[in-house]
Amino acid sequence: MEPLYTGPCTVRFQDIDAAGIAFYGRVFDYFHDAYVAHLAARGLPLHQVIARRSWIMPLVHAEADYRRPLRFGEAYRIELRADPPGRSSYTLRYRIVDLDGQLHAEGATVHVCIDLTTDRPRELPEELRAALSMQEERSG
Amino acid sequence: MEPLYTGPCTVRFQDIDAAGIAFYGRVFDYFHDAYVAHLAARGLPLHQVIARRSWIMPLVHAEADYRRPLRFGEAYRIELRADPPGRSSYTLRYRIVDLDGQLHAEGATVHVCIDLTTDRPRELPEELRAALSMQEERSG
Amino acid sequence: MEPLYTGPCTVRFQDIDAAGIAFYGRVFDYFHDAYVAHLAARGLPLHQVIARRSWIMPLVHAEADYRRPLRFGEAYRIELRADPPGRSSYTLRYRIVDLDGQLHAEGATVHVCIDLTTDRPRELPEELRAALSMQEERSG
Amino acid sequence: MEPLYTGPCTVRFQDIDAAGIAFYGRVFDYFHDAYVAHLAARGLPLHQVIARRSWIMPLVHAEADYRRPLRFGEAYRIELRADPPGRSSYTLRYRIVDLDGQLHAEGATVHVCIDLTTDRPRELPEELRAALSMQEERSG
Repeated sequence: MEPLYTGPCTVRFQDIDAAGIAFYGRVFDYFHDAYVAHLAARGLPLHQVIARRSWIMPLVHAEADYRRPLRFGEAYRIELRADPPGRSSYTLRYRIVDLDGQLHAEGATVHVCIDLTTDRPRELPEELRAALSMQEERSG
Repeated sequence: MEPLYTGPCTVRFQDIDAAGIAFYGRVFDYFHDAYVAHLAARGLPLHQVIARRSWIMPLVHAEADYRRPLRFGEAYRIELRADPPGRSSYTLRYRIVDLDGQLHAEGATVHVCIDLTTDRPRELPEELRAALSMQEERSG
Repeated sequence: MEPLYTGPCTVRFQDIDAAGIAFYGRVFDYFHDAYVAHLAARGLPLHQVIARRSWIMPLVHAEADYRRPLRFGEAYRIELRADPPGRSSYTLRYRIVDLDGQLHAEGATVHVCIDLTTDRPRELPEELRAALSMQEERSG
Repeated sequence: MEPLYTGPCTVRFQDIDAAGIAFYGRVFDYFHDAYVAHLAARGLPLHQVIARRSWIMPLVHAEADYRRPLRFGEAYRIELRADPPGRSSYTLRYRIVDLDGQLHAEGATVHVCIDLTTDRPRELPEELRAALSMQEERSG
């Protein structure tokens, strides 16, 4: 399946830990950066979602598997895919690969859409559902 | 089951994200800080393990579930427990609770012990196995 | 001059950079953590200042000098001092020393107190001025 | 004076602090990311410098002035300039501006080139001196 989003993934000088590889927790920063970039590319920038104060989609779960070390100075790409969304929740899947296509880390995040008026889960808004599907929204 | 380690868990001013709560990836920093503090308390400081260059125990998996938001200025505690270890791997479990005992986040990390000479998994060293058990090492 | 505040300063496993020492930018995290701890110790917790939405004290300047490397696994202390405050601004000074008293990093931050109604500088509130002085506030 | 390097500067979702703007320490991450990108663009990638173990150029000083808040979701650019280098040290200057050209933060870092054999300052290597000058290196 084609990724919803793919982009560069940079291991920064300061992402390295005392064992000499990217700190394991930093992959969740990379996952989230890809998610933010994807939402912006689909016309649903996260800062605008937050500013509207209507609904929000916090994480309820995150996980990662580490296959090969991520090193400073090597080039990676990150791919983002979405499982078919539920009524009020959705699962995103991420893969970080090197330029030879070898998998270094993969993982998932699970989000629930919360109505900020009721503070309870709500149906996924149509614009969010669209941003999670392969079809780009059309204007006509 | 009693935790192997319990200690304060501080959400820093700079751990907050644009949605106003601790960034989800920061819980893995909190998990790892508790792990480092536990190893040091058991006489196996991680920086010494790294400096010896004999074996190392990288993560192969990490996960977290988010139950309630973690906020700047509130006080939390973190608890660390270990599953019965395998031959060359071990699983640590973490819980972040507030002072009323309410669970905010929980998760796990899975580590494999690697022999740095062969670059392959090895049996857990006795000192590491001891650090993962409830019995404090005895001297006599 | 005695510090206003002194406390432990921990270089975390994940604060290390690809050159093997604490990333230079992390000292500003350490500075700010000491500032937050000092304000809390003086009964003016930063999260409560923020929640009141009356005034805030953003930074206008920060600087650091690096004397010796900061390493994972070594123990440091941080000291915080304040220059005599101005009308609406104040300067904090920080020193990070090892247990032999050797200086590893030092620096300063300059803050301006902003009235959130007018969005302009205001006189330092008395409770903030007290928190920056050596005399602990008295109750009677 | 034209910048040596100019590139996008992204305030990440997780760079925000409890006061709702980018944490002041994060500008030093942005400064360093620009420095790393510049060195790579000039054919002197920092990870290769580190791997050679011949010389290194740690910071001895860093500073920043904060003119306007940096916010999640707004677009910025960062510019890097170099002062005329000294014998063994050099000063880099950074400006973070928004798309209207308004200055949000500016600062500087001072680096000293250290010979890893003697652990003492050394003359700036020619390739480093070239990377700090406006003239791109020529091949013939």
